[in-house]
Amino acid sequence: MKVTHKIAQCEQENKIWWSFEYFPPRTAQGLQNLLDRIERMRGLGPEFIDITWNAGGRTSELTAEMVKTCQSLIGIETCMHLTCTNMPKEKVDIALREAKISGCRNVLALRGDPPMGKDEWEAVEGGFVHGIDLVRHIRREYGDYFDIAVAGFPQHQSLPPAELEFEMKCLKEKIDAGVDFIFTQMFYDVDIFIAWVKTVREYGITVPIVPGIAPIQTWNGFQRATSLAKTVIPQSVMDALEPHKANDEKVREIGTKLVAEMCRKILDANLGIRGLHFYTMNLEKGTKMLLEELNLVPRLETVKPLPWRQSLTPTRRQETIRPIFWANRTKSYLSRTENWDEYPNGRFGDSRSPAYGELDGYGISIKQSKSEARALWGEPSSFAEIASLFARFCKGTLSALPWSDQKPSIETSVIADQLAKMNELGFLTINSQPAVNGARSNDKIFGWGPRNGYVYQKAYLEFFVQPALLAHLLSHIERDSNITYYVINKRGDLRTNTHSDGPNAVTWGVFPGKEIVQPTIVEAVSFMAWKDEAFELGLQWARVYDADTVSAKLISGLMDTCYLVNVVHNDFHDANAIFLPFFQAGEEYKASQTKMNGVTPNGNPSAP
Amino acid sequence: MKVTHKIAQCEQENKIWWSFEYFPPRTAQGLQNLLDRIERMRGLGPEFIDITWNAGGRTSELTAEMVKTCQSLIGIETCMHLTCTNMPKEKVDIALREAKISGCRNVLALRGDPPMGKDEWEAVEGGFVHGIDLVRHIRREYGDYFDIAVAGFPQHQSLPPAELEFEMKCLKEKIDAGVDFIFTQMFYDVDIFIAWVKTVREYGITVPIVPGIAPIQTWNGFQRATSLAKTVIPQSVMDALEPHKANDEKVREIGTKLVAEMCRKILDANLGIRGLHFYTMNLEKGTKMLLEELNLVPRLETVKPLPWRQSLTPTRRQETIRPIFWANRTKSYLSRTENWDEYPNGRFGDSRSPAYGELDGYGISIKQSKSEARALWGEPSSFAEIASLFARFCKGTLSALPWSDQKPSIETSVIADQLAKMNELGFLTINSQPAVNGARSNDKIFGWGPRNGYVYQKAYLEFFVQPALLAHLLSHIERDSNITYYVINKRGDLRTNTHSDGPNAVTWGVFPGKEIVQPTIVEAVSFMAWKDEAFELGLQWARVYDADTVSAKLISGLMDTCYLVNVVHNDFHDANAIFLPFFQAGEEYKASQTKMNGVTPNGNPSAP
Repeated sequence: MKVTHKIAQCEQENKIWWSFEYFPPRTAQGLQNLLDRIERMRGLGPEFIDITWNAGGRTSELTAEMVKTCQSLIGIETCMHLTCTNMPKEKVDIALREAKISGCRNVLALRGDPPMGKDEWEAVEGGFVHGIDLVRHIRREYGDYFDIAVAGFPQHQSLPPAELEFEMKCLKEKIDAGVDFIFTQMFYDVDIFIAWVKTVREYGITVPIVPGIAPIQTWNGFQRATSLAKTVIPQSVMDALEPHKANDEKVREIGTKLVAEMCRKILDANLGIRGLHFYTMNLEKGTKMLLEELNLVPRLETVKPLPWRQSLTPTRRQETIRPIFWANRTKSYLSRTENWDEYPNGRFGDSRSPAYGELDGYGISIKQSKSEARALWGEPSSFAEIASLFARFCKGTLSALPWSDQKPSIETSVIADQLAKMNELGFLTINSQPAVNGARSNDKIFGWGPRNGYVYQKAYLEFFVQPALLAHLLSHIERDSNITYYVINKRGDLRTNTHSDGPNAVTWGVFPGKEIVQPTIVEAVSFMAWKDEAFELGLQWARVYDADTVSAKLISGLMDTCYLVNVVHNDFHDANAIFLPFFQAGEEYKASQTKMNGVTPNGNPSAP
Repeated sequence: MKVTHKIAQCEQENKIWWSFEYFPPRTAQGLQNLLDRIERMRGLGPEFIDITWNAGGRTSELTAEMVKTCQSLIGIETCMHLTCTNMPKEKVDIALREAKISGCRNVLALRGDPPMGKDEWEAVEGGFVHGIDLVRHIRREYGDYFDIAVAGFPQHQSLPPAELEFEMKCLKEKIDAGVDFIFTQMFYDVDIFIAWVKTVREYGITVPIVPGIAPIQTWNGFQRATSLAKTVIPQSVMDALEPHKANDEKVREIGTKLVAEMCRKILDANLGIRGLHFYTMNLEKGTKMLLEELNLVPRLETVKPLPWRQSLTPTRRQETIRPIFWANRTKSYLSRTENWDEYPNGRFGDSRSPAYGELDGYGISIKQSKSEARALWGEPSSFAEIASLFARFCKGTLSALPWSDQKPSIETSVIADQLAKMNELGFLTINSQPAVNGARSNDKIFGWGPRNGYVYQKAYLEFFVQPALLAHLLSHIERDSNITYYVINKRGDLRTNTHSDGPNAVTWGVFPGKEIVQPTIVEAVSFMAWKDEAFELGLQWARVYDADTVSAKLISGLMDTCYLVNVVHNDFHDANAIFLPFFQAGEEYKASQTKMNGVTPNGNPSAP
């Protein structure tokens, strides 16, 4: 969505809004951390984010990649910076094309800083000389597809009148060339900003102006940023901060209050400005404190249109159905389906047969390094130890499993005890959801979708299990005509008691004036595609250990012999019914094992 | 579906099955009565029906039309008879092509009786000489699309051995040419039948044999049919019936017992026969009594796959969604959408925009003749009298309205009192459904779809209303954020409080292992198409009376000034909430009218 559209929406709702700016980090680990942070900070409610374009051009591809990730995986509207520095026209076109493919509708067009090692700005051969050339190029090539922003410099209000006039005329010329709004550089003197806005308006420039706000996070950071940009710092700000320059915590505390005061003054200045753009410097705390100080904590229940995070890339915007299997592996699902021409909308498998990308092409892997993995999961030497890891994960005392990077969701906590018990009995759960019989759509735990609706879930369990225990389980499951299941092994032998080939909707919602929405399904073809990934993640865990260790053999042996099973209890009125056959089968198996050979069922896997 | 497929299914389920045969009646009124009867007799649970081909060819087009109606509107599998009599090849091809278009998969290929006025059979020019030629032709032209049946003649068991042998060889030849099963002529001597079946089998004929059973309904009918076909009647049957030949009721009673005994003997004879084909003679009672005597009352809740009757024509078989507006006018909906290439399946408006056929092309009309209409609805001279007709219809004391040929459905009776009250208050209801919050799918009143499911409905009301009362209603409706409505007048001015263009699912079901099924929706474009029909039916009612009568002016004036409104209450948890604004607005309006001018609101319509 275009930023101007968002601004107009917020104005209509008389709502103060904010946005965050990030820059591409230098290292791969830094990138991962930043993406995690952007994901977390999404919870602070920014309307959109900006990703800067690195002056030297070194990390320009990274900018495009980050824009893509933010639009598709994190599902947040993104504005891409684009500079003329070191950018021949072809590179500009590649960047714009990629942005468009990612669904990005906003570009901040900048001339940019001088190239690395140079003092004066110079155009690259075949590149653009002025920001306005870039603006005109984008308008010419892309019509009104992009919102185009340019930078404004409030500090220039103190330039000599002739220079200010020249700059204003240049700015007006850019606006007339098709610019939609203005981001300002950071500033700490609100009076200068207010005067500058009035000057801008006097030149007949009516587009929205978004003030750039830089939280004060550390003394050194503050000094570096302001001296680099030659920012005027009011004496009062200096006086308040300098005495504490050795104490960053104090600097941040005072800085937060100062900047918050600044923000209030801007919003109260009758300039028609209702939005603030935060220069986060890729940091979380300063921005968060500032928003809290401003009492701009986001509406606790920001509308969640679907139970899973929607992608904002153009073809995926209409996507409304996904298989449940990748619930904890969204990124992998997006990768393996990114070549689909259309995404399921309303029904799964509507206009295409689900052809999943092969595993190899997408580098499916567990997130943890070998050392992290060993730290997390130790060196299990028995099936019981593995089961205990799974049980701990369900109880929240282990932070990750190879199949899940994150702790279980809040809704899973409702059934945490039952899940832990299942794992202790030998069913190694990797995915689940509890039954929900018509929670309100604004329910804190289960709610999603428009207001005045009702949401539903069928209970779902997915787990690895050894053949002997599986046999017990199936005999119990077959007694409940409400249970449907799929069983598969690493080789792909599939067994099911469902008679229909079609999908089973396991999450759906009923809303005023709408068709039924059914965003999550269980389905055979998808399960078979997911199966490869599920077993591969287990094998990767095994490879964390040297090949001849007990742990490696134990885990890879388990993957070779066990089954991956998914189970749906189709009567969503009874939240506990799904667990019964597991508890019965588990206890029965335990008893039979004890009787037979005096060993517990959680000993090493018995032969199939 | 092919009859042999049905036979196989029943065999697998070890189920006795039956089918009914009808012949095309001579008059239009007779046709309408018969179609109504077929519709009713569908409730007796036949697996399929047969429509005969009239020997003289006079009513041959009627056969094709009846096959179409049975497949599409009544939704029952049909077997079309086809004879060689008076049928040049081109006519045969037209008949087969039309049968295929209607989704009919079964043909009984006959040589047929001699043409009218002739004693000996003769081929028409360019026609087929023997039944086997017709069989070969169908197989050649249509591959295995059709199941082909031929007739068998059990009575011929008593022919001289050489003749019987010749006939058996002919039959075998036909079977080898591609015949799938055999219908026998009627008979009353089971021993002869059993012997004949054995003979057939001795000749290596293994296809299913379906015995033709003729219920004994009246003495004269029994005499006529048996003498026409030279049917052997066992002396015991004669002895039992003849003494009562003046008392048809007694004949039917005894005949029923006799024929039932016959049927039992056939089914018990270890011939592998599990199906009975009833020659109904277009009568209902005899067949019904016979089935009851045989204890073959259909499973009370035969599976109803959707809340409305599915069409069995090829393109419509996948249809799973319809707008609610035509709930009482299925035939008109089928007509107005019959040119759609695809029918909504899973979602409404999936692969096409709903382009409804124009009214004119389909001869939309009320079912009643002028005299019937006047007998039913009298000559109303005030709005109050009209409202009272609507109220009586809701209470079940009036059998039809121009908008509804049939009495309200059982499910509507749940809200009959509320509906009657609405009408008395001036809201002239023409369609409605109560809210249902998860009834079991086998619920006697609301159930549909596979077992172990739950079905839901949003409360729905559709009615005509005068402008002044509508204003009161809308002010009350706007207070309930769960209500969505569409208001339209004859000119097509549309008003709504829904923000989405998409359909609103008002009936849906949740079933084990399936996507959510949502067979009924409310949607703007369809409502606008339906509007023309709804107002037109009112105008046709007006035209029942001479143009200058009070009734004509009253009703046509009402159609000119009133609005057609549909209202959905989106919270299906509260079954009564939808009625509140109506009662409030109605009472309020009544009070205001009384106060203003001392007349009741149900007097003649006030100017808008």
